Amino acid sequence: MSFDHLQEAIIAMKNPTVAGLDPKPEYVPMHIRKECYEKYGETLEGAAEAIYRFNCGLMDALCDIVPAVKPQSAYYERLGWRGMEMLERTIRYAKDKGFFVIADIKRGDIGSTAEAYSDGWLGTTKVGESTFSSFDADCVTLNGYMGSDSVNPFLKTCKALDKCAFILVKTSNPSSGELQNVAAGNGDTVYGLMADLIEQWGAGTQGKYGYTVAGAVAGATHPDELKQIRARMPHSFLLVPGYGAQGGTAEDVQYAFQDKGRGAIVNSSRGIICAWQKTGKDGMDYQEAARNAAIAMRDDICRFTTIE
Amino acid sequence: MSFDHLQEAIIAMKNPTVAGLDPKPEYVPMHIRKECYEKYGETLEGAAEAIYRFNCGLMDALCDIVPAVKPQSAYYERLGWRGMEMLERTIRYAKDKGFFVIADIKRGDIGSTAEAYSDGWLGTTKVGESTFSSFDADCVTLNGYMGSDSVNPFLKTCKALDKCAFILVKTSNPSSGELQNVAAGNGDTVYGLMADLIEQWGAGTQGKYGYTVAGAVAGATHPDELKQIRARMPHSFLLVPGYGAQGGTAEDVQYAFQDKGRGAIVNSSRGIICAWQKTGKDGMDYQEAARNAAIAMRDDICRFTTIE
Repeated sequence: MSFDHLQEAIIAMKNPTVAGLDPKPEYVPMHIRKECYEKYGETLEGAAEAIYRFNCGLMDALCDIVPAVKPQSAYYERLGWRGMEMLERTIRYAKDKGFFVIADIKRGDIGSTAEAYSDGWLGTTKVGESTFSSFDADCVTLNGYMGSDSVNPFLKTCKALDKCAFILVKTSNPSSGELQNVAAGNGDTVYGLMADLIEQWGAGTQGKYGYTVAGAVAGATHPDELKQIRARMPHSFLLVPGYGAQGGTAEDVQYAFQDKGRGAIVNSSRGIICAWQKTGKDGMDYQEAARNAAIAMRDDICRFTTIE
Repeated sequence: MSFDHLQEAIIAMKNPTVAGLDPKPEYVPMHIRKECYEKYGETLEGAAEAIYRFNCGLMDALCDIVPAVKPQSAYYERLGWRGMEMLERTIRYAKDKGFFVIADIKRGDIGSTAEAYSDGWLGTTKVGESTFSSFDADCVTLNGYMGSDSVNPFLKTCKALDKCAFILVKTSNPSSGELQNVAAGNGDTVYGLMADLIEQWGAGTQGKYGYTVAGAVAGATHPDELKQIRARMPHSFLLVPGYGAQGGTAEDVQYAFQDKGRGAIVNSSRGIICAWQKTGKDGMDYQEAARNAAIAMRDDICRFTTIE
């Protein structure tokens, strides 16, 4: 699904947010863990199953109010191939539930390798005369440090299959400025140049809302930069991490949006999936807690930004 | 294993090269594919098994003459979780055969996520009171666009477990200059600033050959930049992709080495694993062909660089 689909889902739900599915075993409520460890042992397999059930429960609780989920690949790779199998299942479940799925993988590599990644995450893989889908997300995150030939194979797949990608511009982490904010070009910055490259790479692929297949990642923790990036990238949909646990506020993220609250989606991971840890109820209420947290986040952001 | 171990293996074999295990199903000789497709079907499972057998055969043929292997994660992710399971097995087999294993993953993410990646690829994962290894490579490749907190969790694991990492500086692909060669800082370039950051990040972790846990990737296809990077990063072990299929020559890669041919390793992937496609023997000789190609590469590089 393209950014058109994402924008439509955001408008329909009046909610420009995405739930980050970044689960560690210790984020899973004890009753789910216990059941899975009893059945599969206190093993990677048991942890993977527990996380899968947790993910499904979260998605059941969120699917009518949150338009998108963003599983972060690291938390699945951490459990080895069993984690990856569970990531495949999580993505399948998410799509069945109607979510727009952003696989947060931040890949970037030389052309032939980027093609292999793109096959695995967005496209299809040929084996003999047969064709298979592996992870089959709607959208991925990418790192453009290696330039256009590390990104183009993904964009080609996006155009062919009506999918899309977010490329890192200015990230939300404390050390993001070490390289990204260095002065570069003529009175510019590294992240500014990256912003221009992304607009170039996406050129000519605008959908009905005006966004190209090449979106951008711009952190909520740097509102001034976010404002500049929004102005500089009129054709790019923005993924905004850093709200909540990392310190970004609803006031900060308002700058990510264009007219009518268009063109951006704000992520929260721990704020939603770990919400049950703050209710004092041992996690039996994890679905309700996640749903309440997602509603609170939506309402918080919509204090400054009206979605039309 | 650290860069000390890698340097020792290079000296012992007088061979500063690494074989890239970047297998597509069509790179696997027909007799192996046929056997696996008959047993597991023309499926992702069949392709994964065929690639695993091919990898093992290649490693059997190379283990006494090539010190390291570098599986490129993309070619495994392309097959979904079955590919990742086979990557785990490939790494295990490689370590049993005595290879130094570089997992080419080019990851880079915010601190908590980098920690999860580091657990999965170099360290261990806790499930309840139990501890598991997942991919368990000796070394990974990283992308430092997000700055120190995207790299530090890996370096911490490297220090704790005597492992190491290569971080992208100047990559071998044609478009690498779009961002990396832009003027930045005071009369410098983006890749030059990245080189300095990596020297800082590794500071204080030198092993007996003088290299820190933070190595660098510098492509063979840009010999002038390679020369500059070698001079500028005296404490960094270099991984040099781009030899062979991508156009880098033995004359070009000589600039990656310090005195006595120390401090660098040159990769070839397709040149070795697809060597059988050029002998006209239907792949029955893929082991011999790979071995001959690896010997030819070693001898070619050693025309300009003497390993002592």
